[in-house]
Amino acid sequence: MYIADETWPELGDYLEDESIALVPLGSTEQHGPHLPLATDHIIAEAYAREAAERTGYLCTPTINIGVSPHHRQFHGTMWVDAPTFRNYVESFTRNLAYHGIDRVIYVNAHGGNVEHLREVGRHLRDEEVLYAIEWMWNDSIPDLVDDLFDQNGPHGGPKETAMIQHLRPELVREDRLEDARDGGLKSIDEAETTKFGARTFYDAADNTDNGVLGDQTDATAEKGEQMFEEATAQLVKLCEWLDSQDFQDLMPKKHV
Amino acid sequence: MYIADETWPELGDYLEDESIALVPLGSTEQHGPHLPLATDHIIAEAYAREAAERTGYLCTPTINIGVSPHHRQFHGTMWVDAPTFRNYVESFTRNLAYHGIDRVIYVNAHGGNVEHLREVGRHLRDEEVLYAIEWMWNDSIPDLVDDLFDQNGPHGGPKETAMIQHLRPELVREDRLEDARDGGLKSIDEAETTKFGARTFYDAADNTDNGVLGDQTDATAEKGEQMFEEATAQLVKLCEWLDSQDFQDLMPKKHV
Amino acid sequence: MYIADETWPELGDYLEDESIALVPLGSTEQHGPHLPLATDHIIAEAYAREAAERTGYLCTPTINIGVSPHHRQFHGTMWVDAPTFRNYVESFTRNLAYHGIDRVIYVNAHGGNVEHLREVGRHLRDEEVLYAIEWMWNDSIPDLVDDLFDQNGPHGGPKETAMIQHLRPELVREDRLEDARDGGLKSIDEAETTKFGARTFYDAADNTDNGVLGDQTDATAEKGEQMFEEATAQLVKLCEWLDSQDFQDLMPKKHV
Amino acid sequence: MYIADETWPELGDYLEDESIALVPLGSTEQHGPHLPLATDHIIAEAYAREAAERTGYLCTPTINIGVSPHHRQFHGTMWVDAPTFRNYVESFTRNLAYHGIDRVIYVNAHGGNVEHLREVGRHLRDEEVLYAIEWMWNDSIPDLVDDLFDQNGPHGGPKETAMIQHLRPELVREDRLEDARDGGLKSIDEAETTKFGARTFYDAADNTDNGVLGDQTDATAEKGEQMFEEATAQLVKLCEWLDSQDFQDLMPKKHV
Amino acid sequence: MYIADETWPELGDYLEDESIALVPLGSTEQHGPHLPLATDHIIAEAYAREAAERTGYLCTPTINIGVSPHHRQFHGTMWVDAPTFRNYVESFTRNLAYHGIDRVIYVNAHGGNVEHLREVGRHLRDEEVLYAIEWMWNDSIPDLVDDLFDQNGPHGGPKETAMIQHLRPELVREDRLEDARDGGLKSIDEAETTKFGARTFYDAADNTDNGVLGDQTDATAEKGEQMFEEATAQLVKLCEWLDSQDFQDLMPKKHV
Amino acid sequence: MYIADETWPELGDYLEDESIALVPLGSTEQHGPHLPLATDHIIAEAYAREAAERTGYLCTPTINIGVSPHHRQFHGTMWVDAPTFRNYVESFTRNLAYHGIDRVIYVNAHGGNVEHLREVGRHLRDEEVLYAIEWMWNDSIPDLVDDLFDQNGPHGGPKETAMIQHLRPELVREDRLEDARDGGLKSIDEAETTKFGARTFYDAADNTDNGVLGDQTDATAEKGEQMFEEATAQLVKLCEWLDSQDFQDLMPKKHV
Repeated sequence: MYIADETWPELGDYLEDESIALVPLGSTEQHGPHLPLATDHIIAEAYAREAAERTGYLCTPTINIGVSPHHRQFHGTMWVDAPTFRNYVESFTRNLAYHGIDRVIYVNAHGGNVEHLREVGRHLRDEEVLYAIEWMWNDSIPDLVDDLFDQNGPHGGPKETAMIQHLRPELVREDRLEDARDGGLKSIDEAETTKFGARTFYDAADNTDNGVLGDQTDATAEKGEQMFEEATAQLVKLCEWLDSQDFQDLMPKKHV
Repeated sequence: MYIADETWPELGDYLEDESIALVPLGSTEQHGPHLPLATDHIIAEAYAREAAERTGYLCTPTINIGVSPHHRQFHGTMWVDAPTFRNYVESFTRNLAYHGIDRVIYVNAHGGNVEHLREVGRHLRDEEVLYAIEWMWNDSIPDLVDDLFDQNGPHGGPKETAMIQHLRPELVREDRLEDARDGGLKSIDEAETTKFGARTFYDAADNTDNGVLGDQTDATAEKGEQMFEEATAQLVKLCEWLDSQDFQDLMPKKHV
Repeated sequence: MYIADETWPELGDYLEDESIALVPLGSTEQHGPHLPLATDHIIAEAYAREAAERTGYLCTPTINIGVSPHHRQFHGTMWVDAPTFRNYVESFTRNLAYHGIDRVIYVNAHGGNVEHLREVGRHLRDEEVLYAIEWMWNDSIPDLVDDLFDQNGPHGGPKETAMIQHLRPELVREDRLEDARDGGLKSIDEAETTKFGARTFYDAADNTDNGVLGDQTDATAEKGEQMFEEATAQLVKLCEWLDSQDFQDLMPKKHV
Repeated sequence: MYIADETWPELGDYLEDESIALVPLGSTEQHGPHLPLATDHIIAEAYAREAAERTGYLCTPTINIGVSPHHRQFHGTMWVDAPTFRNYVESFTRNLAYHGIDRVIYVNAHGGNVEHLREVGRHLRDEEVLYAIEWMWNDSIPDLVDDLFDQNGPHGGPKETAMIQHLRPELVREDRLEDARDGGLKSIDEAETTKFGARTFYDAADNTDNGVLGDQTDATAEKGEQMFEEATAQLVKLCEWLDSQDFQDLMPKKHV
Repeated sequence: MYIADETWPELGDYLEDESIALVPLGSTEQHGPHLPLATDHIIAEAYAREAAERTGYLCTPTINIGVSPHHRQFHGTMWVDAPTFRNYVESFTRNLAYHGIDRVIYVNAHGGNVEHLREVGRHLRDEEVLYAIEWMWNDSIPDLVDDLFDQNGPHGGPKETAMIQHLRPELVREDRLEDARDGGLKSIDEAETTKFGARTFYDAADNTDNGVLGDQTDATAEKGEQMFEEATAQLVKLCEWLDSQDFQDLMPKKHV
Repeated sequence: MYIADETWPELGDYLEDESIALVPLGSTEQHGPHLPLATDHIIAEAYAREAAERTGYLCTPTINIGVSPHHRQFHGTMWVDAPTFRNYVESFTRNLAYHGIDRVIYVNAHGGNVEHLREVGRHLRDEEVLYAIEWMWNDSIPDLVDDLFDQNGPHGGPKETAMIQHLRPELVREDRLEDARDGGLKSIDEAETTKFGARTFYDAADNTDNGVLGDQTDATAEKGEQMFEEATAQLVKLCEWLDSQDFQDLMPKKHV
């Protein structure tokens, strides 16, 4: 059920029975010469809507702009500062609780949002407002992702390329896949991202000239579809697990 | 040009020549028994994208959640607190300036956002970061709106109904238009919204039982299309005017 | 009853019976070559004190500095930033509730404060701290204001001039009324304040060379007195209405 | 020169030559059964206006509400929270600099404001915005104050009583001076305000039943006038000293 | 008992019986050519640990960095901005209450922290979270300090020198005591720290070339030991007094 | 060089030549029945001081309290809220730049601080204030840590036990090592920390009854010493690398 397509009386029926919401979050940021800036929010929205459709749980509109200052050197990257992002997400999530929502899944497709969503989730749980957790599609199918690609790259690599080939093929610049690979950092192992145990880089531009990593040339829409099916199945299971929990078990344990 | 569909090198070409961005903003809030919660953000997005397509100027993704605490008593209404909304909008707008954007139109379709967008625009202009202004479709065609409907109602009325009939007809519950009228406040004049000069109400629920105002029964898709065409034409002219201005003329005047 | 002239035991007697407070708010900002910077706070204070005297309700000291960045280009205009103003008003209002005040009228005479006072009032009501509303004298007598003057101008015009001629005649530079008119913007209709539906100006200096609008030459103390009497009567009625309400009826309605 | 009585062109003349502003700050808080809540802001305003009149320097409107949570148990005490007070004062002071004001004297008559004004002054000086200092009338004439009264009491005592007897005699409840003394804490030495070196009290109510300290019965208007004359003379000298300084000498010293 | 040396089950035993915590706070700031930057936090820690050992009450780790912008012109001075310091202290103090701590002594050895600790203590008490007070060693033995030294100086003088000679003699540059005196401000009376009642200086560098005041040459370890013994005895008594109080008596009085 | 033991003139000599500072950060939080709450800050301090001694670079005092809400259910755990921690660290780091420090290593020994230190480091670098990075000892010697222990556990396991056995043996409760293992979670693999790709736990208490993980029984002081030597060597190399960099190379790259 997509909240924005419904009327308030219809939502009243849902909220009488259910208290779960799926919130898709992504970014609008550079993804190399071959993928659109929308990459992350397209992926997040696709997973959240599909899982909502299969389960009947509620899905909210997508948060399209996230914490992406590390991509700012590339044209068009949009971002909000980290404290602002946290406050924004916390505010609308907290307000969802006014309607009876008491468990939220942040269906996230941007690595730069992860820690911030966890911080928000912790804060809302510490205050016993509701229980919110972050879920990222590739974390749910790590072995499959590893099997499918030679160099899957954490940003703009074949993993994300295949997802967009499956979801929005018209947005992939297929003729630039080789350029993407050759102009970027093919293997993360080649990058000197740490020195003596310290992570020394802050920006994507510190490691890659065109903004992406990995070898995009072995991405296909079929691989994208396979990942989408398997990760969606994981998300559906997560929804079901969450629904089956007693609310008090999701809240913080008492002091020893 | 829709920023999220582009790649960063393509955006580099745009930003070399142009410095305008259109930002659609709406809400996800109750619009009565006949219209979806998406109403405002659907409308905002449609105008911004259409004007961007016609002019070639840049359009960003849509901000779907706005300042709607006054609709919170109705199921599903999402909102962020006003200071959080301002900070969020200011943060991503300010960051757009990093890429050379120096004039922004907030294509807004939710009355509750207006003052907050103006406050953000003022702040960014006072600091000479960039020039941002708020535009709302119905403010650009007031006479037409008045002519088309008997009781256009400021929220969920025939004006907005017609827009969704035109833009997303499948989302209008046509069989509830009479209910919408009869269960709401047909005429704003019937409401006691002020007492001796003071606005005494804060929430939609203070004035209307089903969340809407106006007489929805004379809304048609044709009227929606007519408004869309005329207001889009206004927005296009606004873009052209903005582009033609010298940046210094858009900045604050000096101290007398 | 003026709170600042009383001792705490005397106020204890008041608070045992009553729970209303009138709070005057204005600005210290340019009002053209003929009116003092005090204009708005003189007017606000006069109304609040007079209504308090006639009704016996409590009046607090005046907030003399408001949100006036749009007049900053003219010498001497004082202002606080909008978030700071809101926090300040919210803080002292919230603290009034500690003594049992549960309904507040912001007797405001500066247009730039309106939205901020409403935001504060909403926040305090949403949290069920107390009920606070904004009242502005000219909003309570719109027809009279229109009848009295040819071009009443929203800022520094004959409307405000007449008020100061009545309340503090020694502060009006009578010999500069024609200069005021001729050096400013006589008719608001002459100004290009909007473009294709968007309000494009932010500062008074964008529209008027000497900071004022309207035709000040038909202002008289008599007209000022007439407005003062009629608007005070409105304010008194507002107090009585407010006092007659049940507190729970002033608080937000429950979720449908 | 009182800023609020002037027009902007007149202030332009002042600001061409001078850059000093006097800002009176007080409180609206209980001062026992004999003095009005206005006590502190009446005193502050009187000194600032008088010094401005004698010297020609600029005086702003009075800040009537200060940091008084320690008097909140007594009816009618108004206060803003400390961070809000600091932000409010810093905001309008910073904005004065926009007009060329570069040195400010906070003419303060409320002990609870002192540290906050110094914190604001430090912050503005550290950032080299302007130079602002706090002045309190009784700190400028400590010996005289000691000589005039047997038990001058830091709050609501004869010192403040005499000031109001001089400035606003109609506001002193002369028939309650003995009550004030007998119902309060006559001598600060009798209070156990510290324990083994630690200040253990936070509120006035912790030490005094009626909110005041000292012996009010030897207060007279003549003593008030004498103090007013001598402290005003000190303030005038402070203005002259401040005016004579080179701005760079008022700014922070460089790193050694 | 030092909290950081204990394990959580051992602390559970303490918290079952007791609810007091001692929190040492100092600074890391210049103390002239003869004393280390650690001076204040060494002293604070020594008192808090000693009193905790003698009484069995809990002592927390030391806050080593305080509010010291007024010493920033001298190499190495560390500081946090005042609002940040207050928030930090308030946050960990508030969280101590989660374990049942309901009374806290801030064992402070840096004058620049005093007002901020009191503001935090007030805030926590106003909200009835717990009772926290500030204690500074020299305020508990003012007569002894006066007797022991000719010119004790408020910063880096013989008072603090003697304390470090006693506590950490290896850190005192004994061969620079005369330099310290001669290069600084021997007597505070020689400084022009106020003008006509206003404190005109903000930084140590405004008054002293080498950062210190007083005559360090009559400092000895023996005097340090004597002060340490006597002030520790005071702190122990404060702990015992605090423990003997009923919690409700430590909380704010009710409204009159 | 330890900043707190030095005098300001001595630090002036250092700062003339060098611009590196090492800042140790830990926590004061439960580490099971066998280790003191100080564990993390002892370890951080030991590494930072040792590296500073070997290289001559500056080390600051230790930040003893960090972001540990996830351990709050266990007696005595101290913590500050995440935004407060970030602001505190950012404030003193930013102020270090005033003295010429332009590169900082956060020598961190608490996992809960990592993301917050990176956020601060990013913010300071984005603003080009200075370059600050986070270093954690075990991240610099991952293979050695894996080799030495069977189940090293991320919190309170043999890795940390061995470090305290080496650094502060008197603080290890050697007779409770088996209890620690048996009462906690021996192997992280046994914990259900994620569900279908989402991390579902927020608190240590969600996974472990006594607050720790791993098998503490194969910890020895010798292993602690070995780790200390090898990780210190890494930290020394990091210092040298950092010193050898050109400052501009450490700053953000320009927009493409």
